[in-house]
Amino acid sequence: MIVTIVGLGLMGGSAAIDLKKRGLASHIIGVDHDSINANAAMHIGFVDELLELDDAVKKAELVILAIPVDAALRVLPKILDKVDKQVVTDMCSTKGKLLEWVKYHPKRKQYVAAHPMAGTEFSGPWAAISNLFDGKAVIMCDTEDSDIRALALVKRMFETLNMRVIYMNGANHDVHAAYISHISHISSFALALTVLDKEKNEKHIFDLASGGFDSTVRLAKSSADMWAPIFEQNKENVITVLNTYISKLKEFRKHIENDEPEKIRQLIQDSNRIKRVLFK
Amino acid sequence: MIVTIVGLGLMGGSAAIDLKKRGLASHIIGVDHDSINANAAMHIGFVDELLELDDAVKKAELVILAIPVDAALRVLPKILDKVDKQVVTDMCSTKGKLLEWVKYHPKRKQYVAAHPMAGTEFSGPWAAISNLFDGKAVIMCDTEDSDIRALALVKRMFETLNMRVIYMNGANHDVHAAYISHISHISSFALALTVLDKEKNEKHIFDLASGGFDSTVRLAKSSADMWAPIFEQNKENVITVLNTYISKLKEFRKHIENDEPEKIRQLIQDSNRIKRVLFK
Repeated sequence: MIVTIVGLGLMGGSAAIDLKKRGLASHIIGVDHDSINANAAMHIGFVDELLELDDAVKKAELVILAIPVDAALRVLPKILDKVDKQVVTDMCSTKGKLLEWVKYHPKRKQYVAAHPMAGTEFSGPWAAISNLFDGKAVIMCDTEDSDIRALALVKRMFETLNMRVIYMNGANHDVHAAYISHISHISSFALALTVLDKEKNEKHIFDLASGGFDSTVRLAKSSADMWAPIFEQNKENVITVLNTYISKLKEFRKHIENDEPEKIRQLIQDSNRIKRVLFK
Repeated sequence: MIVTIVGLGLMGGSAAIDLKKRGLASHIIGVDHDSINANAAMHIGFVDELLELDDAVKKAELVILAIPVDAALRVLPKILDKVDKQVVTDMCSTKGKLLEWVKYHPKRKQYVAAHPMAGTEFSGPWAAISNLFDGKAVIMCDTEDSDIRALALVKRMFETLNMRVIYMNGANHDVHAAYISHISHISSFALALTVLDKEKNEKHIFDLASGGFDSTVRLAKSSADMWAPIFEQNKENVITVLNTYISKLKEFRKHIENDEPEKIRQLIQDSNRIKRVLFK
């Protein structure tokens, strides 16, 4: 099958590698408006050919959109305008606005909204790796608006990436993504800003980072181009969870200020319950 | 050399494993007031003998204190009361109060204050692993108050654990530890509390955790017995950095509320500078 991947970064590139290696894609066409990324993808070798969007869509059987959510709002309708029998899917981290955007597009049925819950803190074609998606969950949204053939193909594609398929409506997806993934990123960005602000001695940051800071701040290496539009598009849910997060931090602050070790201990023990959940 | 380790959890146990394996310790005596931990340490095999504190100190050449910081305030003076020629060190995450506590102890010179910047989110003797300390930094504090022989022995011990030795005074240590390590833990505990609070569907947490949540929340599995006393003892520094952290989160919230994607992008790009620091 000929697969077109629009956006040759971490997500698109990693998908390209495994779809080819595992035999679902016989030929991969890459599209990227950034010529450095496009050429890197050819050089690294995970795309077979670079084309402009129109030709790339025309030649493909499956089109995978792997670009930031703000760009996706512009590009997805353009792709749907061009499709004949092609199936289109995406990898965006917010779904509500995108789904609303194409709700009445005449080719809506050929599009399957998806969010593979995988990634690393790195970005660009150089960050693409094999096995990125293995064992992780992919959320497919509002699948009742996609036709059966499109759904089957996209499902097969994600199963080739060894992902577990979960179904959710777009609005629910955005709530849960904010509550779990988006807040983790803000927490980590703010932590990096705090440490850079307070700790003027960068050597100390490096030396003391193994005290847990390194894992907590890992996500703060994530791309601004990808994350700023996510927070913008998922504004309401992100604000809701951010309010709760700030209030939890204030609880810690209050109990530390008031010398209440038993209450601090209780907060920590309550937070330890996350172990049980993540082991499931 | 006979080494006594007081506190047979993650830190003490991991030290025991490598000090024996790498030949610095010929015989390891374990002390733990919790008989389950003590027996587990014998059963796992990283201690050769269990003794009460007094006998364990008497028989040893080097005593390593690896217990929570509140307990250390009680136990360190007791150990120093018993020492003859023994050298004593500790692994506590706050140093100011402990150093003040024993400042005028007649055996102060035989004690070397140390904080190995290593760990995992797990605790107890079952969490002890080889190579935990390799390549990490150990901070030795107020070393001018320790005698040369004690310092040389403790340095040799941490070098056997393959650690880089850094010197800092106790007050500075507590500032930097709060700015980097302690805030990371609060950030992670509060994140776990937030997600457990907002996301009632635990299955969703599990499914969506690979979106970055898992690494950011890792530290929220850490022990309350260890961390509550740390925040208590390092109260002022922790409050200072917590205030900055909350204000950074509020900046994110403001820009998201006001639909200012360029300002969000700028905050993220500023936070990305942490990459450069951690690569050093």
